[in-house]
Amino acid sequence: MQHGGDIYTEGILKGRELIDFSSNINPLGIPESFKKHIEEGIQSLNRYPDAKYRELKENLTRYINSGYELFHSNASKNKCLIEESNLVLGNGAAEIIDLVISCFESILIMPPSFGEYQEDAEKWGLNIFHLSMNENMEYDYKGIQNSIDKVQALIIGNPNNPNGGIIDKNKFLPILKYCEEKGKTVIIDEAFIEFTGNIENSFVEELENFKCIFVIRALTKFYAMPAIRLGFGISKNEEILNKIRKKQNPWNINCFAELAAKYVLKDKEYIKKSITWINEEKNYLPKELEKISYIEKVYKTYSNFVLCKLKGIDCDRLYELCIKEGIVIRKCDNFIRLDKSFVRFAIKDREKNELLIKKLNLIII
Amino acid sequence: MQHGGDIYTEGILKGRELIDFSSNINPLGIPESFKKHIEEGIQSLNRYPDAKYRELKENLTRYINSGYELFHSNASKNKCLIEESNLVLGNGAAEIIDLVISCFESILIMPPSFGEYQEDAEKWGLNIFHLSMNENMEYDYKGIQNSIDKVQALIIGNPNNPNGGIIDKNKFLPILKYCEEKGKTVIIDEAFIEFTGNIENSFVEELENFKCIFVIRALTKFYAMPAIRLGFGISKNEEILNKIRKKQNPWNINCFAELAAKYVLKDKEYIKKSITWINEEKNYLPKELEKISYIEKVYKTYSNFVLCKLKGIDCDRLYELCIKEGIVIRKCDNFIRLDKSFVRFAIKDREKNELLIKKLNLIII
Repeated sequence: MQHGGDIYTEGILKGRELIDFSSNINPLGIPESFKKHIEEGIQSLNRYPDAKYRELKENLTRYINSGYELFHSNASKNKCLIEESNLVLGNGAAEIIDLVISCFESILIMPPSFGEYQEDAEKWGLNIFHLSMNENMEYDYKGIQNSIDKVQALIIGNPNNPNGGIIDKNKFLPILKYCEEKGKTVIIDEAFIEFTGNIENSFVEELENFKCIFVIRALTKFYAMPAIRLGFGISKNEEILNKIRKKQNPWNINCFAELAAKYVLKDKEYIKKSITWINEEKNYLPKELEKISYIEKVYKTYSNFVLCKLKGIDCDRLYELCIKEGIVIRKCDNFIRLDKSFVRFAIKDREKNELLIKKLNLIII
Repeated sequence: MQHGGDIYTEGILKGRELIDFSSNINPLGIPESFKKHIEEGIQSLNRYPDAKYRELKENLTRYINSGYELFHSNASKNKCLIEESNLVLGNGAAEIIDLVISCFESILIMPPSFGEYQEDAEKWGLNIFHLSMNENMEYDYKGIQNSIDKVQALIIGNPNNPNGGIIDKNKFLPILKYCEEKGKTVIIDEAFIEFTGNIENSFVEELENFKCIFVIRALTKFYAMPAIRLGFGISKNEEILNKIRKKQNPWNINCFAELAAKYVLKDKEYIKKSITWINEEKNYLPKELEKISYIEKVYKTYSNFVLCKLKGIDCDRLYELCIKEGIVIRKCDNFIRLDKSFVRFAIKDREKNELLIKKLNLIII
């Protein structure tokens, strides 16, 4: 599977510096709260991690239950949404996606979406059903309702990669109710949820009433640590959780990932700065992209990346021209239902976003 | 699966300091060469690892091919034993053991041995055959030859956990030849091989002539980094390697594990110090253990741990008494073929080994 622009082949391994707009990582970079405690991580390297990961699970639970305090400075609205026993831990969200999908015989995928959904479903031999988004890249809720009987589970991004759209809770609730009643599982990939700036967009609040929900989270994107490898699943469905746990290897989380969960998930300063940044740039970059002559459509995003439809140029050509300018972009033709007219740009800090717009304007087609 | 004494339950989580003789980790601790470059690891946190792990594979390949130079200061004997394409990478050896076992329908296990062999074989539904070691905890080579037709693969520790014995190459070669001829796979777990002090004990030299060999290595034990999570498999059997790769998730190795492979595997000073230490203590601790009144037998070890058979006391009681003295030991009754009369001690530095002997002598039964 090809994921994003390959910055190693084009850049790092050739000793060339490229600006990577293909990878959707918080440009604020590694939280200081992690760096400050790195020595603690080094100290724990020479013993096996706790096989039960008790402290790690406590930290993740506190994070989920402190959403209002952390993201909206409103501790009074904090709720006890989950307990440690509702968690399953992964060596990155990739492991969780893989293993939760492995629990079913059939699945509904809504393309375009993260390529691993399809890869993993194929790997485990599931019957796969596709339901496309509409022309604005919004979920087809009626279509989901009409298709759900065919499958044991559905997987849905919130926000979705590559377009950045989120689930409309009002329209989705009847589907949840139906799935709860029929014993189907709704896997909601919330790897990018923090970028929406509103914690109420998450479905962790609905976990209480819906055993059918399985939420996936990670430290990868918002906390800018794709190389730390920590993802987790949250559900009140013990059966699914145990099925996953039985397939896992012991000590699947490294000690630096444990350290990150201990410190960055309560780093209010980092969270606040990040939300301020993304709110500003979400207003800036899409508008500027709309002005580019060869961009036909900019899709509404709630996340830190923007999907665009090109006209008069294809993604291969634009990719080549951008590489010449020192920029890596994400060609989207390997997303199911997309073709060579789609590209995705990560939202970075203002300086880099301005540079991107400047470079894109230099390209005359 | 219970692995070793649970130092978290008894110690760390209660804020109590215990000396952990249950965990077989190099007491020299984290190599300085790793700590010195930690900043480089932090810098690479905010981008995804190279999905192909090209640099990491180069470093592992160099390590294996430089065995004589690193362990015997004899660079002229270095050989090109393996290439990058012979490697498969794991989130700890645990992932490699799990996935290589998943490739077969039947397996021969030689208990007592590392519990994960059995766990993984059960998980994947293999037909499992057991062949016990003899009363000195040596491999039963004739027995292997007689049993091998029943299985597609065998898994064997070199050195073996929990006793520390190694494979007798002369006696094992005819088995290898037979397996090569019959298309069977010989999985050799060499997680502890460096502690034997002689790189010729490893079967990496035999990889050239035997496609049937699959060697497992890790940074866990000798480089004192169980929490870094890096193991790898080496084989010239492309079919097995590809079967494993297809089951793996992307980015299964974190950036600190990559960093460790880059620096510690060429840290000659650390290697030299470690070999000096283990050679001395392998001579000291087993002899001292033999003098303990309630130890009936001390098994010959080539590694950094010692299996003992007790008399007049069982492992539960000795464990409790040791905990009171601030020491965690490894009860061995959950190893197949062992019972409550077996315990295992890690070999630590002289000061701690002396302390262990002193404490064990205090226990009058």
